Amino acid sequence: MKLHNFYAGPAILPKEVIKEAARGVLNFNNSGLSILEISHRSKGFTEVIESAQALIKELLNLPKNYHVLFTTGGASSQFFMIPMNLLNQDETAYYVNTGTWSTKAIAEANHFGNLVELASSEDKKFNYIPKYKMPNKGKYLHITSNNTIYGTQIQHFPKGALPIICDMSSDFLSRPIDVENFGLIYAGAQKNLGPAGVTVVIVKDDLLGTVKRHIPTLLDYRTFVKKGSMFNTPPVYPIYVSMLTLKWIKEKGGVEKMERLNKSKAKLLYKELDSNPLFTPNIPNKRDRSLMNVTFQITNPQLESDFLVEAEANGIMGIKGHRSVGGFRASIYNAMPRSSVKALTDLMADFTKRKG
Amino acid sequence: MKLHNFYAGPAILPKEVIKEAARGVLNFNNSGLSILEISHRSKGFTEVIESAQALIKELLNLPKNYHVLFTTGGASSQFFMIPMNLLNQDETAYYVNTGTWSTKAIAEANHFGNLVELASSEDKKFNYIPKYKMPNKGKYLHITSNNTIYGTQIQHFPKGALPIICDMSSDFLSRPIDVENFGLIYAGAQKNLGPAGVTVVIVKDDLLGTVKRHIPTLLDYRTFVKKGSMFNTPPVYPIYVSMLTLKWIKEKGGVEKMERLNKSKAKLLYKELDSNPLFTPNIPNKRDRSLMNVTFQITNPQLESDFLVEAEANGIMGIKGHRSVGGFRASIYNAMPRSSVKALTDLMADFTKRKG
Repeated sequence: MKLHNFYAGPAILPKEVIKEAARGVLNFNNSGLSILEISHRSKGFTEVIESAQALIKELLNLPKNYHVLFTTGGASSQFFMIPMNLLNQDETAYYVNTGTWSTKAIAEANHFGNLVELASSEDKKFNYIPKYKMPNKGKYLHITSNNTIYGTQIQHFPKGALPIICDMSSDFLSRPIDVENFGLIYAGAQKNLGPAGVTVVIVKDDLLGTVKRHIPTLLDYRTFVKKGSMFNTPPVYPIYVSMLTLKWIKEKGGVEKMERLNKSKAKLLYKELDSNPLFTPNIPNKRDRSLMNVTFQITNPQLESDFLVEAEANGIMGIKGHRSVGGFRASIYNAMPRSSVKALTDLMADFTKRKG
Repeated sequence: MKLHNFYAGPAILPKEVIKEAARGVLNFNNSGLSILEISHRSKGFTEVIESAQALIKELLNLPKNYHVLFTTGGASSQFFMIPMNLLNQDETAYYVNTGTWSTKAIAEANHFGNLVELASSEDKKFNYIPKYKMPNKGKYLHITSNNTIYGTQIQHFPKGALPIICDMSSDFLSRPIDVENFGLIYAGAQKNLGPAGVTVVIVKDDLLGTVKRHIPTLLDYRTFVKKGSMFNTPPVYPIYVSMLTLKWIKEKGGVEKMERLNKSKAKLLYKELDSNPLFTPNIPNKRDRSLMNVTFQITNPQLESDFLVEAEANGIMGIKGHRSVGGFRASIYNAMPRSSVKALTDLMADFTKRKG
């Protein structure tokens, strides 16, 4: 049976990438050795990490004064690494709270300086993107571009006086962005980029070296800049598979093409949700709906588990909503083919006909 | 051509593990999905991480008051996480300096309390394990059990008043140890355990919660204890492959069997080094020689590159010594078959006959 992988993360990777990733485990670059057992200083792996960096620069059209770093510890480790590296104890940073991840980012950053929650959508269970005015003074403004759990996404990024720090974990490389608008972008790999175990940080050079506190070597972004993310052994395999995915994105036509496909997939699913009487999308305002994580409910809760059972029986995996929201969530990242989204909407239509 | 992988790390993994690891990339547990694209909260992966923990507990015969944690950032991140979690600013920790890694551990820890270098072998380029007396008072004593770069190894662990913190990155699971002798053991996976990207920390419960400083959530060992190393998405694939290696160690007869094999391989190689007039081991004192990383020189330096070329031509990979030491290094971890060591000693004997 064909499986449709709607997991929120770790998430679907392109079939071609999976195949090549397995080949690399058995015999990397026809070297006779596995990618799992070669030195990270070997020519083979040096090429891998350098081309991963170069591909991110190319795909996002990065200006020269931005660095691409490969770190570990997930986006959750960036929650404290960002203020540790960028915010002095007597400086102010602004945070926009749009869900679970921003809430955690605020909690971690609070220990490193003055934190101001500039806006929040908590009053309506994070089901919209709040409005706010960019402050004139302050060290940075932190936002979360896509909310994996609640299903909202920022469609227009703010512009103004402060460098923008953006958690793009769940929509990185899903659309073109104007990088010059940002001071720092970070993303855990396990949505659009690769397997869990590596985190990408893109940082503007002039933000570095502006804090006074002691920073341990491996928490200091400057160590990663200076050593090409190879101060110590990096997570070799997660970087390797990320490089394969980056190549795949480029071959498919880049982030512009990804955006077009993502819009088309999201349109198909939201259209079904807006017209099918048995299902209803969680995010009322079309402008705030995520193209990556589509959250929805069934209007007759007694049918919820029936639908889940039928979904699994049809190879539709991972659509149970996050425990803090309930209902359903279909994650439709770059690698998700439109045909899988169609399998889901077809089932919804058919289910409603039979049971609605 | 049969390849013999003598890389120091990332390093050789058992052939059976590599095969199974590639299968998991294509089709994990016959689920039809790749291990790279399933949720870390799925039943499949929960079983993987739980059995990895259980196998470490079983193989090392861990008492109940020890926790097994899976972290990221390599052993180098433990250099600051250890004092951050265990040492108050006004407390004293003792460090034994036996090479590059201990030197780095000391430099990172220095910012978190009073550091005393109890002993050092730097006077002789770290070619021996220094003697010292365990202090009566202090927070802990930090040692490095095996020195990957210089090729020394502690054969008898100290005992006394202080909890011992031990960096076992390059000889973890290579021999039985008496865990009750230690307060904390840590090891990057990429030698005896698995691919790069995960670090194991074994910590005694009563050491936790004894410092006053603020610790970011993901740097706090207690987060890993409380959440079973799943506060956020862990490095799924490195943990999966580590679990496969742990199963392999168990099936082969456990760490006792590993030690017997490791001793036999090391004996073969050191015997050649001690008797072959063209080669000489770096570590003069037999008691201090590493069973994992055998470092040696060629007495006629003009033949060094010749030997390297012949080694590669015979499938002997990765025996160039670390850049800070020069000469040669043969890393002969758990997964290295005796026949590969024999291929190296045979070449040495033959080379000497022809060119010595």
